[in-house]
Amino acid sequence: MTRFASTIQFLRSSEIRDLMSLATAPGIISFAGGMPGNDLFPLNEVDEIYNSLSVKEKQVAMQYGPTNGLPNLLESLNEYLKAKGLPVESNRIMITTGSLQAINILAKAFVDPGDYIMVENPSFIGALSAFRSYQANLITVPMNADGIDIPQLKEKIASAPQKPKFFYYSPHFHNPAGIIYSQEIKEQLIEVLKGQDIPLLEDDVYSDLYFYEEDKDKLKLIKAMNPDGIDVCYTGSFSKILGPGLRLGWMLVPEHIYQKCELIKQSIDACSPSFSQVIADKFLRSGFIEKYVGEVRLEYKKRALAMFDCLEKNLPSYVKWNKPRGGFYIWLQLPQGTDSTEILKKAIEKGTVFVTGKTFDPDGKRNDCMRISYCNTDVEAINKGIPIIAQAIKEVCG
Amino acid sequence: MTRFASTIQFLRSSEIRDLMSLATAPGIISFAGGMPGNDLFPLNEVDEIYNSLSVKEKQVAMQYGPTNGLPNLLESLNEYLKAKGLPVESNRIMITTGSLQAINILAKAFVDPGDYIMVENPSFIGALSAFRSYQANLITVPMNADGIDIPQLKEKIASAPQKPKFFYYSPHFHNPAGIIYSQEIKEQLIEVLKGQDIPLLEDDVYSDLYFYEEDKDKLKLIKAMNPDGIDVCYTGSFSKILGPGLRLGWMLVPEHIYQKCELIKQSIDACSPSFSQVIADKFLRSGFIEKYVGEVRLEYKKRALAMFDCLEKNLPSYVKWNKPRGGFYIWLQLPQGTDSTEILKKAIEKGTVFVTGKTFDPDGKRNDCMRISYCNTDVEAINKGIPIIAQAIKEVCG
Repeated sequence: MTRFASTIQFLRSSEIRDLMSLATAPGIISFAGGMPGNDLFPLNEVDEIYNSLSVKEKQVAMQYGPTNGLPNLLESLNEYLKAKGLPVESNRIMITTGSLQAINILAKAFVDPGDYIMVENPSFIGALSAFRSYQANLITVPMNADGIDIPQLKEKIASAPQKPKFFYYSPHFHNPAGIIYSQEIKEQLIEVLKGQDIPLLEDDVYSDLYFYEEDKDKLKLIKAMNPDGIDVCYTGSFSKILGPGLRLGWMLVPEHIYQKCELIKQSIDACSPSFSQVIADKFLRSGFIEKYVGEVRLEYKKRALAMFDCLEKNLPSYVKWNKPRGGFYIWLQLPQGTDSTEILKKAIEKGTVFVTGKTFDPDGKRNDCMRISYCNTDVEAINKGIPIIAQAIKEVCG
Repeated sequence: MTRFASTIQFLRSSEIRDLMSLATAPGIISFAGGMPGNDLFPLNEVDEIYNSLSVKEKQVAMQYGPTNGLPNLLESLNEYLKAKGLPVESNRIMITTGSLQAINILAKAFVDPGDYIMVENPSFIGALSAFRSYQANLITVPMNADGIDIPQLKEKIASAPQKPKFFYYSPHFHNPAGIIYSQEIKEQLIEVLKGQDIPLLEDDVYSDLYFYEEDKDKLKLIKAMNPDGIDVCYTGSFSKILGPGLRLGWMLVPEHIYQKCELIKQSIDACSPSFSQVIADKFLRSGFIEKYVGEVRLEYKKRALAMFDCLEKNLPSYVKWNKPRGGFYIWLQLPQGTDSTEILKKAIEKGTVFVTGKTFDPDGKRNDCMRISYCNTDVEAINKGIPIIAQAIKEVCG
């Protein structure tokens, strides 16, 4: 009888893995993934970067690097984040092995088994998995169309058995809810957390993927507002603006939190991949990133608009949804009590997949909603797959 | 007052980081690192691999992959490990972000705060850091020239306050002790652990770097012996046989342990870098690996022999050391009670660094020993740096 650690029981079975292997099976139209389209990666730019590397740069790419990241990438990322208005001078950057690792490290820095933390409902499955792995108790707060429900947030903080260790949220083009936090809700959130000794984990991997130039001003991060009296821990990623296969993300956090996170990172994987870091650094410095992100923004918008059109034509009116203004995801609200797993079964039979609602419910219960993404399917696949999903919904909901 | 998790106090301050930044400072001769020489990386082979990738392979390199690794690399690594006599059929492979991550994941799978685990003294600092990060109590067992001290191992298992969760060891060209476990000690170790429900973590990253063909038969892993009645968890790495900058390692473990580890890996970084995995797969399949490892074996041997020669000529006779027959490290035993930190200070003044003994002592105490490595210095640097170290030893020890 193997004597595993008690933490093991807090981790869920691999439903995501099973769905992902289905999602990438040949012949399946997948609205399930949160990955960029294979056809959209900047392969020519990466070729140009690789072939322009000096011998010395290639040696750096093959060698261990500092725990917090290669100096060159720290410098170029510093400029990149500074240009977004982020307070790089008064904080520290750490390069991580994907932004999930940044979230995991922050969770480890703050959470003792049994501690309480606050999360949105619905929320990003990867972060939930990291929080569960440290045996955190999750206090869930529902979302509205403009962000977290502030009265409920206040009430849940007040009624928590212990003061929560942090509040984890995602401000822009939310995964899976697809929404943008309004400036008003962000300001109310600051007021609620100020002086409370409850750090804010601000997870932002989609802000660059806005569809409308006029939204740019709405996409201000709380980290960029640099509010007094809150430790804001901001995490981001190269996964959506270069390629997830590089496994590179970052955190920008106050110095005293950074010091703890660096120790933790040393014990996890010593440093993030140097090979990836050399490429990402050149991608930032060359200016390829602005051109590339501009292009994929247009492509994701095209796919999103095709999907909106297709949903409007095919979905029954009792399905409620909002049109996202960027990012990857559309969140469908089904009639109360619907089991979206039944819909998924029917969709799979006809060669289409998506992700059921309960996957994103921190309590693992609410299943009368579902996430469909347009990031990894071209317009043709959207036009073919969405009617199948609409039909499956009708078969289950009537 | 930030409310960090209690685990934080179990992690040591960044002495390794400080030493490493010194070790890579310009003008310093460094015998401190455990990294391959920058001049030894197979850059031409990696160029050839990169430039032969198809568009589809490059897309795979930029995309998320399965948590346990890309199917192609799992297949080629399976063949590579099978050829070493490892029981790949009855176990599962997982690709990890360096072998340190494999060790970290196994620690998380087994250790609850306050649990006891057993380690060699001296031991690999990265593993110790991973174990501490889960608040393990470390029971240390001293090493002899042919491996762990078996009577003390038995006694410490018997007298442990709780049954230890596992025993962590490194069989070949030990870091830092430089020794090879004898077949006899391996067999005794199997007898001690058999039926005890104490898994064996077998960490092996240097076996391929033997200097003498006649030693090949002595380098049999306990995992390859596949003993009944012990869960052997074997970990390995591409860091020493391709390049640490790729951050790729692996574990080969029984299925029931694999299942837990995959859940943990999902919560840490979702998957290891695909870009690196595509390159490592081609490196295995092309046969480049045999040619490359053959070449670096000769080069490390050349450096080691130069260092032996230089140590024999310069070291006072009261310094005891064994000539390693492979790997990266020489372990010097200084007169009892010597403080190697004093020697380090004098060596640094003259532009040479190494690592002090207490860094590798799980109890952080014994400092009358030191590690010098020859992996990242050419013969010229060895001939210049070793006399400086010998002089520093004489100045401190008389």
